[in-house]
Amino acid sequence: MPRVSQDQLDARRQEILAAARACFARHGYEGATVRRLEEATGLSRGAIFHHFRDKDSLFLAVAEDDAVTMVETVARNGLVQVMRDLLVRADAPDTAGWLGSQLEVSRRLRTDPAFAERWAQRSAAIAEATRDRLGRQRDAGVLRDDVPIEVLAQFLELAYDGLVLHLAMGRPAGDLNQVLDLVEEAVRRPEGGPASH
Amino acid sequence: MPRVSQDQLDARRQEILAAARACFARHGYEGATVRRLEEATGLSRGAIFHHFRDKDSLFLAVAEDDAVTMVETVARNGLVQVMRDLLVRADAPDTAGWLGSQLEVSRRLRTDPAFAERWAQRSAAIAEATRDRLGRQRDAGVLRDDVPIEVLAQFLELAYDGLVLHLAMGRPAGDLNQVLDLVEEAVRRPEGGPASH
Repeated sequence: MPRVSQDQLDARRQEILAAARACFARHGYEGATVRRLEEATGLSRGAIFHHFRDKDSLFLAVAEDDAVTMVETVARNGLVQVMRDLLVRADAPDTAGWLGSQLEVSRRLRTDPAFAERWAQRSAAIAEATRDRLGRQRDAGVLRDDVPIEVLAQFLELAYDGLVLHLAMGRPAGDLNQVLDLVEEAVRRPEGGPASH
Repeated sequence: MPRVSQDQLDARRQEILAAARACFARHGYEGATVRRLEEATGLSRGAIFHHFRDKDSLFLAVAEDDAVTMVETVARNGLVQVMRDLLVRADAPDTAGWLGSQLEVSRRLRTDPAFAERWAQRSAAIAEATRDRLGRQRDAGVLRDDVPIEVLAQFLELAYDGLVLHLAMGRPAGDLNQVLDLVEEAVRRPEGGPASH
């Protein structure tokens, strides 16, 4: 058996993640059976589960990929920018499907503490990046200062969750870009005056 | 066979709806098999499907019950009040589960036009009530007038969707009451000045 370099292992891992994402998007979490994951990746279950312990681990690894990208965007441009990026990608074939497969696990999040814990790890870094950025914006004087950072963060997260559900349900984008302007305005210091009153 | 009155039929129908709601909440849409629906209602599948054509119809009838209540609350107190009511009920055992079962159908909404159409009918009346109330609020001068009603309506709907996803995922209520204050403030005419600028 030829020796496989780390680069080749990493490349193989990325190929599996991309194929798995498309498979979850198309068939949903439950519908993405091991057989379908084999077809999507062109690999045997043995090869897939050499890289990822089981289907849960593979699913969470795809979500973890999203989380890494989100943390970078949040740190640089904020959570509203993540929403605008999502809206731009709304028409891409996999976007709604992949978001939908994430919604499908809602029952497991309530009934399977181990799964919920692994899922929560994924979002903790995003939550932290959101609060860090809001803190920097407040220091820079562009954020309203009459509402705690924590409440503003949860407000933005509520809007993000709403957008995920909207797109996952396959609804049209409508006027969501203008809606995101409202979301952004609601956390900003009002123009021409102090936010405190 | 004794003759059954309309009142008895209506009462039986309500019993089935309540038991089905609990069954969907507990097992999810897919997990609420006909066998489990029989156990939950204490009725045979024949008796259940005398009242509701199939499992889809039963599921949509439970959702329709919610929609009727929502339309009444929206017309009287607005969509933010619907959200506050939902937050109060967040700890009730069935709330998160029933919301979760609604998320589970996201893939069908994208892939099954007939099902999507039946689901959309349920939300059309709520959407109309939301826009009607916003129109009345604008006439009364309490709504900001620099943003179209349609955008304000979609903003409130985004927040509602976000709350549904949040609670369905079993996350804690956190500071969501204060977040809803922000949502409400964002659509109101600012105090002490005209909204237009």
